[in-house]
Amino acid sequence: MHKTQRANSVPKIANYKPLRFIRLDRTLDIPLHRQLGDLLQDAVLSGKLQPGTRLPSSRILAEELDISRNTVSRAYTQLIQEGYFESLVGSGTRVTYTLPEDLLHVVNQNEAAVGARETDVTGKKPRLAQHSAHLVELPYDWERAAAAPFDSALPDMDAFPSKIWEKLLVSTWRGLANRDLGYQSALGYLPLRQALAEYLSTTRAVRCNAEQVVITNGAQQALSLSMGLLLNRGDQAWVEDPCYYGVKAALNSAMAEIVPVPVDQDGLDVEYGIQHAPNARMVYISPSYQYPTGATLSLTRRLKLLQWAADNRKWIVEDDYDSEFRYAGYPIESVQGLDRGERVVYVGTFSKVLFPALRVGYMVVPPALVEPFHAARAHMDRGGPILEQAVLAQFISEGHLARHMRQMRTRYAERQKTLIEMSKKFLDGLLEVQDTKAGLHLVGWLPNGVDDKAVSQALRENGILAQPLSDYALEPMQRTGLILGITSVDVLDIPQAVKKVAAVLSTFITSR
Amino acid sequence: MHKTQRANSVPKIANYKPLRFIRLDRTLDIPLHRQLGDLLQDAVLSGKLQPGTRLPSSRILAEELDISRNTVSRAYTQLIQEGYFESLVGSGTRVTYTLPEDLLHVVNQNEAAVGARETDVTGKKPRLAQHSAHLVELPYDWERAAAAPFDSALPDMDAFPSKIWEKLLVSTWRGLANRDLGYQSALGYLPLRQALAEYLSTTRAVRCNAEQVVITNGAQQALSLSMGLLLNRGDQAWVEDPCYYGVKAALNSAMAEIVPVPVDQDGLDVEYGIQHAPNARMVYISPSYQYPTGATLSLTRRLKLLQWAADNRKWIVEDDYDSEFRYAGYPIESVQGLDRGERVVYVGTFSKVLFPALRVGYMVVPPALVEPFHAARAHMDRGGPILEQAVLAQFISEGHLARHMRQMRTRYAERQKTLIEMSKKFLDGLLEVQDTKAGLHLVGWLPNGVDDKAVSQALRENGILAQPLSDYALEPMQRTGLILGITSVDVLDIPQAVKKVAAVLSTFITSR
Repeated sequence: MHKTQRANSVPKIANYKPLRFIRLDRTLDIPLHRQLGDLLQDAVLSGKLQPGTRLPSSRILAEELDISRNTVSRAYTQLIQEGYFESLVGSGTRVTYTLPEDLLHVVNQNEAAVGARETDVTGKKPRLAQHSAHLVELPYDWERAAAAPFDSALPDMDAFPSKIWEKLLVSTWRGLANRDLGYQSALGYLPLRQALAEYLSTTRAVRCNAEQVVITNGAQQALSLSMGLLLNRGDQAWVEDPCYYGVKAALNSAMAEIVPVPVDQDGLDVEYGIQHAPNARMVYISPSYQYPTGATLSLTRRLKLLQWAADNRKWIVEDDYDSEFRYAGYPIESVQGLDRGERVVYVGTFSKVLFPALRVGYMVVPPALVEPFHAARAHMDRGGPILEQAVLAQFISEGHLARHMRQMRTRYAERQKTLIEMSKKFLDGLLEVQDTKAGLHLVGWLPNGVDDKAVSQALRENGILAQPLSDYALEPMQRTGLILGITSVDVLDIPQAVKKVAAVLSTFITSR
Repeated sequence: MHKTQRANSVPKIANYKPLRFIRLDRTLDIPLHRQLGDLLQDAVLSGKLQPGTRLPSSRILAEELDISRNTVSRAYTQLIQEGYFESLVGSGTRVTYTLPEDLLHVVNQNEAAVGARETDVTGKKPRLAQHSAHLVELPYDWERAAAAPFDSALPDMDAFPSKIWEKLLVSTWRGLANRDLGYQSALGYLPLRQALAEYLSTTRAVRCNAEQVVITNGAQQALSLSMGLLLNRGDQAWVEDPCYYGVKAALNSAMAEIVPVPVDQDGLDVEYGIQHAPNARMVYISPSYQYPTGATLSLTRRLKLLQWAADNRKWIVEDDYDSEFRYAGYPIESVQGLDRGERVVYVGTFSKVLFPALRVGYMVVPPALVEPFHAARAHMDRGGPILEQAVLAQFISEGHLARHMRQMRTRYAERQKTLIEMSKKFLDGLLEVQDTKAGLHLVGWLPNGVDDKAVSQALRENGILAQPLSDYALEPMQRTGLILGITSVDVLDIPQAVKKVAAVLSTFITSR
């Protein structure tokens, strides 16, 4: 009925008037038929041309616009194909009747889309999933400006063998065949998985073959994959307290319940966990160099944890953070290497050893989890790009990785030694810097009662980036402190930087 | 008590006997102190050295083994650090008492870890999250051997401008500063986001600025991110039926309820969706060239869908699959470009335009979703590597992408035309090949009652890869068919391949 009414109300001829809005520009790069098509389409969407409106024949419009008839026909055909126009047998072309006219909005191609904002056009918050509502409450903006002393986010990249990497980029790219550019296994590029299986078994006593190695976009993807795959909503997971917040984010996304388990000088208090949360399904540990406290999980606790996990079929996610950086003795072997119950998902990354924008991490999963992880990764993103993986495989197998790591260990060891010495000299009574021979940061413990967040803020204002330990706490900490990274400060600048820390700290300690 | 008992039972001297197992090998590359440490550690873990066992002094062991005392001391020190040994004030070294002896297992360094298997050491299936249990039921192994005629998984990569890409790899790598190698925004590398914003607004009439563009690991990550972020467990989502199974996988992972909505020649039946599932929270569409049917969503339906979504604050995920490949007319603009309600998440990929192992896809999200997507991506994997993104940004801005796409369009158009012609000639009555001027595949409809899976299998045995349409069906299809890809077959080979299809098909059609 609606249709009939409108059909009757449309005059038979002379809808030429509305087409006066058409101005073609022969100086533009855009073909005339396309300019015409765009203008007609805009006219429909903006309501200038109402549903049912008859259009002039291509001959007449071509004459009016002084263009070829073919140009008009092409524009009409396109609009018919797109559904804006319909052609009537024997009676020309009209704007499609069935277009729901109340849907047609003003189109303004120059209308600038605005940047990120909190609400949508209705002024309301967008409707996210429940588990996503708190996503933005955890730190997510990782982009960094220039580094400052004691920042620990970035490795020192000055010594990165950029020329070697460049050579490998070229030779690797040339060596990739067409089929390598297709879809690879979502588990990662096999030569890299092989190189890693060998590397990890040598350096970390990880027991695996290449099949169990999964390449990820950094350690974070290994965490989110593991927690997504292994935890139901509401499942409990033990988390080291204090803890790296990437873990919290991955557990939140899985809607798991976080059970904070205290960390002391021997690492995670396994007994506490067993007592307080025996039903947890997963345990997260960073046993080599706990982030942020720097504790190493004791052998006794490692074995106890493994036994409990094997007896009760729990999962252990071992984040082997900073295991590469041990400046005395040789590294303590991985928990995975001690595991005989196939309970451990082992996680590592090249973000600190090479550079973060490489986005290559890895995990070693128990044999029974290979297929589920394969499927989960395929459904999540089908894996990462091949080139980085192929270059890295070559970088490892040619011995460049080992060389680079030796060099970096020497460099970092010197800085760490200097930082400890300078702290003893200048920070006595102000900050108790933990004496350790590993890791990319040291923990400095503040006197009881000093607010580490306030101290950190004051330091920041003085050009020093030392994160407060309490930022990582799940439960209030008995004693707080600062994270002093050694990656972003030259050894020669350490004395000066420590003196600056002393100056700022003394205002807090004396003014209490 | 346990402790005391054992302490008493350990003889005061002479535990030298068990150390006879130590055989050092001076020909190995491994330092002697480390060999010794490893052997002692194995002895503890295997039970040869029981908790509490006293060890010979470093002097005595050094004499026995004919090595330097310092070598023994280093090994002992390491094992003390690791918790295997403890040093007793004034009375030497012993195996740590508190090691839970029932936890100590046989360590065999040669024990080969086995490959992927279905059960863990206990012989039981591993405990996955509920939503993960069905992950492996959808296809996840995307690795491909050599292509065969009518396979549609991979683009034709023979024409890829590999030399240009190589040049850009080098110049881009050299141009990256140290800070570029740190953490980038999880949304992606800004110059690429800017290049894409411009590219999409020109070619697809997408309305956005660079801030709204998110770079992903291919389209699949865009799907899994969107569905994970926007859907609660149990939320309904309309899905085109038949549909690409990556969508199903992403929705399964989000534990959403899939509502199949039929597709006809005008694309998704919007009215059907509104009638049958008005409470759905999301709609998935591939409106340019519906996968797998090749339908284009009509303008009327686009507008109706947008209005419904705006009125009811629903989300639309627009997968602009194959929009780049239109061989006649110019492409129909994106649904996102028509959206004034900010309801559309627009998704695209370079997997088909360039190559899959590049792993670069993208999405354009409404302004109010930028921050949530930023956080979600950061928590998922902190973004992809920078190099591909920087190279691609350059590739686009220098005009290489546009050139490459023109070339590929010409190539694919010729193949499509030939395939249609040959089908008319040889497949009459056997397979009704859809006549269209877009996409990287054509749909061939089988006569009613012919089993497309059986046909596909028979073709595979004859070297032809034509996937059955019904593999993509959510509900049983009224009429089934085959997917005939044009990316993996040279134009000259098409007649021969079509004849082969005819030969195989005729056995099915006559034998019915």
